[in-house]
Amino acid sequence: MEAEIKSIPFYLLIDLVNGSISKYTKKIEVRLSDMKPYFYDINALNEKIEKEGNYVIYEYYENSLDRIKGLNFGITIIHPGSIGKEYHFTRGHFHLNKEADEIYIGIKGKGLVLLDNGKGEFYSYLLERGTIIYIPGDFAHRTINIGDEDLVYFYIYPSDAGHDYESIQRRGFKKLVLKINNKFTLVDNPRY
Amino acid sequence: MEAEIKSIPFYLLIDLVNGSISKYTKKIEVRLSDMKPYFYDINALNEKIEKEGNYVIYEYYENSLDRIKGLNFGITIIHPGSIGKEYHFTRGHFHLNKEADEIYIGIKGKGLVLLDNGKGEFYSYLLERGTIIYIPGDFAHRTINIGDEDLVYFYIYPSDAGHDYESIQRRGFKKLVLKINNKFTLVDNPRY
Repeated sequence: MEAEIKSIPFYLLIDLVNGSISKYTKKIEVRLSDMKPYFYDINALNEKIEKEGNYVIYEYYENSLDRIKGLNFGITIIHPGSIGKEYHFTRGHFHLNKEADEIYIGIKGKGLVLLDNGKGEFYSYLLERGTIIYIPGDFAHRTINIGDEDLVYFYIYPSDAGHDYESIQRRGFKKLVLKINNKFTLVDNPRY
Repeated sequence: MEAEIKSIPFYLLIDLVNGSISKYTKKIEVRLSDMKPYFYDINALNEKIEKEGNYVIYEYYENSLDRIKGLNFGITIIHPGSIGKEYHFTRGHFHLNKEADEIYIGIKGKGLVLLDNGKGEFYSYLLERGTIIYIPGDFAHRTINIGDEDLVYFYIYPSDAGHDYESIQRRGFKKLVLKINNKFTLVDNPRY
């Protein structure tokens, strides 16, 4: 059955200081236990859950429309913290549709975006208030909170992008982002 | 010849207070003379040019990439003012690709967005700092500066949207937005 295509304009509000939005069609919370396939130090992760409970690492508030094509958008909030030496990050994914690009706009906090096309090209960009990052559809992308407060950013991508998390679960990104002497450092990912 | 597809991530900066961006691939200035097919009171427009010169009504700074699919984005600045009783506005257009939706984010100033699908459905939304407007691809859209300062907003749409200005030149939007007693008022467009 074909999805019904809504063709009704709508509006919502975004607070351009803290990123909160006035409506969304889904809210997703990603907790420590959801991140087991992604963090390098699985023992540190399990210890965290035992000691601090299964807390939310990041959450996103999205407007996904009932349109086959169209634009999905929302905000992501990554809370500060680390698991072992790794800072809190998003799972990261490839788009199934390699032509589906994505754009980020930093609203608050300090982050790093990793971009990896799986074929040797790897980039990292700082993401702060007012940074716009253009992510070509063939690059896996992950965001890392390297600061001491919530990292908040706006994202937008074509509704037909699709998501591939499995490739990331298998080997992660080319680099790990570690907190060493209270600074972020990129090191080669041994599993890659 | 097929367009070369660049697949290199990039970043730029946006000032989230005034909307200025640090780089763009094109800057377009739209002047009084370019707007002759769009304003209702052509005599008022011609008089303006004679008295005040052929000034810029609005300008936009865009990042259009060499990608067949992808996302184009930028900011539009509409300067305050009026031509006859009509406030300054953008030409407005339909997308040729009716599946190509668009999103606006208000940064500064006070505006109105008109949405018209040409088949009887018409909407108008206030556009101010922090307003996000979702424009389905089958709706023509025009933005009007109904305030006393620059209206600045961020826009983003799929690169394969295409633009149809001719339909708007022929009959405009269902409503005109007039400045009456220093307030905006929507009235039926007699040419529509």
